[in-house]
Amino acid sequence: MAIEKNVLSLFNGDSHVAELDTSKLIITLAKNLKPVTEDVQFGETKTDHMLVINYEPETGWSAPEIKPYGPISLDPASSCFQYCPNVFEGMKAYLGPNGEARLFRPKKNMERLARSAERVALPPFDTEALLILIKRLVTIDARWIPARPGHSLYIRPTIIGTRSALGVAASDSAMMYVIMTPTGPYFKTDAKGISLLAVGSTVRSWPGGTGGHKLGLNYAPGFLPQRIAAKQGYSQILWLLGDDHKITEAGAMNFFVVVQRDDGDLDIITPPLDGTILPGLTRLSCLALLDAHTAHRTVLPNLPPTLRLHTHERPLTMPELAAWSAEGKLLEAFGVGTAVAVAPVGRIGWEGKDLVLPSENRGLGDVGRALLDRILDIQTGKVAWEDWSETCDV
Amino acid sequence: MAIEKNVLSLFNGDSHVAELDTSKLIITLAKNLKPVTEDVQFGETKTDHMLVINYEPETGWSAPEIKPYGPISLDPASSCFQYCPNVFEGMKAYLGPNGEARLFRPKKNMERLARSAERVALPPFDTEALLILIKRLVTIDARWIPARPGHSLYIRPTIIGTRSALGVAASDSAMMYVIMTPTGPYFKTDAKGISLLAVGSTVRSWPGGTGGHKLGLNYAPGFLPQRIAAKQGYSQILWLLGDDHKITEAGAMNFFVVVQRDDGDLDIITPPLDGTILPGLTRLSCLALLDAHTAHRTVLPNLPPTLRLHTHERPLTMPELAAWSAEGKLLEAFGVGTAVAVAPVGRIGWEGKDLVLPSENRGLGDVGRALLDRILDIQTGKVAWEDWSETCDV
Repeated sequence: MAIEKNVLSLFNGDSHVAELDTSKLIITLAKNLKPVTEDVQFGETKTDHMLVINYEPETGWSAPEIKPYGPISLDPASSCFQYCPNVFEGMKAYLGPNGEARLFRPKKNMERLARSAERVALPPFDTEALLILIKRLVTIDARWIPARPGHSLYIRPTIIGTRSALGVAASDSAMMYVIMTPTGPYFKTDAKGISLLAVGSTVRSWPGGTGGHKLGLNYAPGFLPQRIAAKQGYSQILWLLGDDHKITEAGAMNFFVVVQRDDGDLDIITPPLDGTILPGLTRLSCLALLDAHTAHRTVLPNLPPTLRLHTHERPLTMPELAAWSAEGKLLEAFGVGTAVAVAPVGRIGWEGKDLVLPSENRGLGDVGRALLDRILDIQTGKVAWEDWSETCDV
Repeated sequence: MAIEKNVLSLFNGDSHVAELDTSKLIITLAKNLKPVTEDVQFGETKTDHMLVINYEPETGWSAPEIKPYGPISLDPASSCFQYCPNVFEGMKAYLGPNGEARLFRPKKNMERLARSAERVALPPFDTEALLILIKRLVTIDARWIPARPGHSLYIRPTIIGTRSALGVAASDSAMMYVIMTPTGPYFKTDAKGISLLAVGSTVRSWPGGTGGHKLGLNYAPGFLPQRIAAKQGYSQILWLLGDDHKITEAGAMNFFVVVQRDDGDLDIITPPLDGTILPGLTRLSCLALLDAHTAHRTVLPNLPPTLRLHTHERPLTMPELAAWSAEGKLLEAFGVGTAVAVAPVGRIGWEGKDLVLPSENRGLGDVGRALLDRILDIQTGKVAWEDWSETCDV
């Protein structure tokens, strides 16, 4: 049974209820603004305001509200607590050269959020309208966007199921909200590279499962393995799948390796979007930038213009990595994602041994560094590239 | 990496914080009691009171509170919304012959809840203390236990992660609560048997996944397939796994079939607890009662005392079912679980055809009916069996 592309017809009466409507926005500003703090743990400090919109099956999407950040109140039987039809996105706002707030490819986030919502039978919504509302929220809390290099304002759009009945069934009511938090580097150990423990006995995702969607429920199963890995001295899990030790993701990041070829070129390999891998926006952007370098459409920072970087989206296994490592061909490994941008991997524990990357003691290798620098330059509007960076004017 | 049996050591300082303590119970009774309603949709009407206990890493479990049923208020960044470390149990209270409130094997629920909590790195708790508190709650709302046969008071213990930070990590704070709802038959079509659509393209659980634990996050991925199945006229999904079309569960129930043997005996087959199947309490109880009948330790209602019922916990595939059905050997199929007790399956859609059970037009077959009747008799205290039914005296 294929999941239908258009599930609108599964929502009774949806065509007759209110769409998400930016013209109905109600703004209630906080009376007392919090002092802005910059150097904080990822995701702990929240800005002054939040965006909230509710969906009820009879009436559709409520008037959007931007209001002071605060707790939400829900029936304890709500689906979000009981059966977890909860989805989210990760985005960031950056300060541009003229002090303007900028978002990085936000339409992609909106599209993915809509697909996530569909996957857990949450109501559909107008993605363009949500993006306009997010831009309004960012503009209102723009003073929270850190000016410090490598820092940004993390944006977390969330949709949760709010049906308050215990029968196991799709949540026909929902709450959409957007919260924001100023953020610096995700990992404290970036300088040296993070350590990964390759784990195949607990499995993050599976063919026919939900690993290809950004659902909250993909994350809690990793908490205990993550704690156990931390006890063993590893920072994150490298998730494996199947008897061939196929690599899926690293912690909550997409995973890349850089392999030396005999002809002097480099292979840059990342697992394919086969439904077990989150279709990451940073992943997509890295692949495009690498291809652009090789096609001479750009020169990535500090890489030889003639260096050919061959990108491959294909299954990647631990035995392959171990073989390349033994041959001295495994030059770099890094994780990519919105929260981390590009994070160097220093070592990978697998079957009792540590596979040490040559760049362990200097953080990112040449390719990872080039990608990080270029992506940050695009995100902050220093370098224009296609339509990847947009301002928050609406 | 095996998940350690005892994860207490993973919780820093847990031995120094407060345990769940029944002696600290604070009871605040509702000023106005709601009118009791009986004939309601499963899980929609809630009783007058709820039990709530909070966990913080510095202080441990708070004083338990029984208080009027009402909304809970949480930070929108809370882990329960974002990453879904949410677990629950399903239990029922029944009215005994002397009007006393009775629970069915509740210690098993407490043990499973503790294992669920451990799987998503929620804090450990004293299972005996929680059971005492649940009994207090049931006693306070005892007027909500329906007297009508086949009806009961459904109890939903829940634990959710309440850490209010966006970094992907275990929730070091939590809220435990118990809510209750009067309930009648779960399915409206019991008389005829429910229809199942066998689905293998989306999977409920997999080796190394969380299907063997009662986590909220196991359920939302089934919402969309369930809606699509309903559009095709089926009541629930029969979840398959793997190229051999192995049956795991039916909707949110464990699955049984009854197969005629050539020697006149019956085989009763249910999939094994291999980590992809919820270890259901009704499942366990059905297996024990069937074995007791065959061992002449009891006679199940309306079954010949000499009928031998051979129970098997072993992989069960759709091709096997189809072959037995074609040979006229597939006598019964039913789903079991706390919410449904024993629910007859009337037909199973698979690969474009419907496999019709012989008992389709009369609901439960002989074995399913015998199990349902005996379990209800034990649950309501009409028949004593081992220590399966206990009162709420504490």
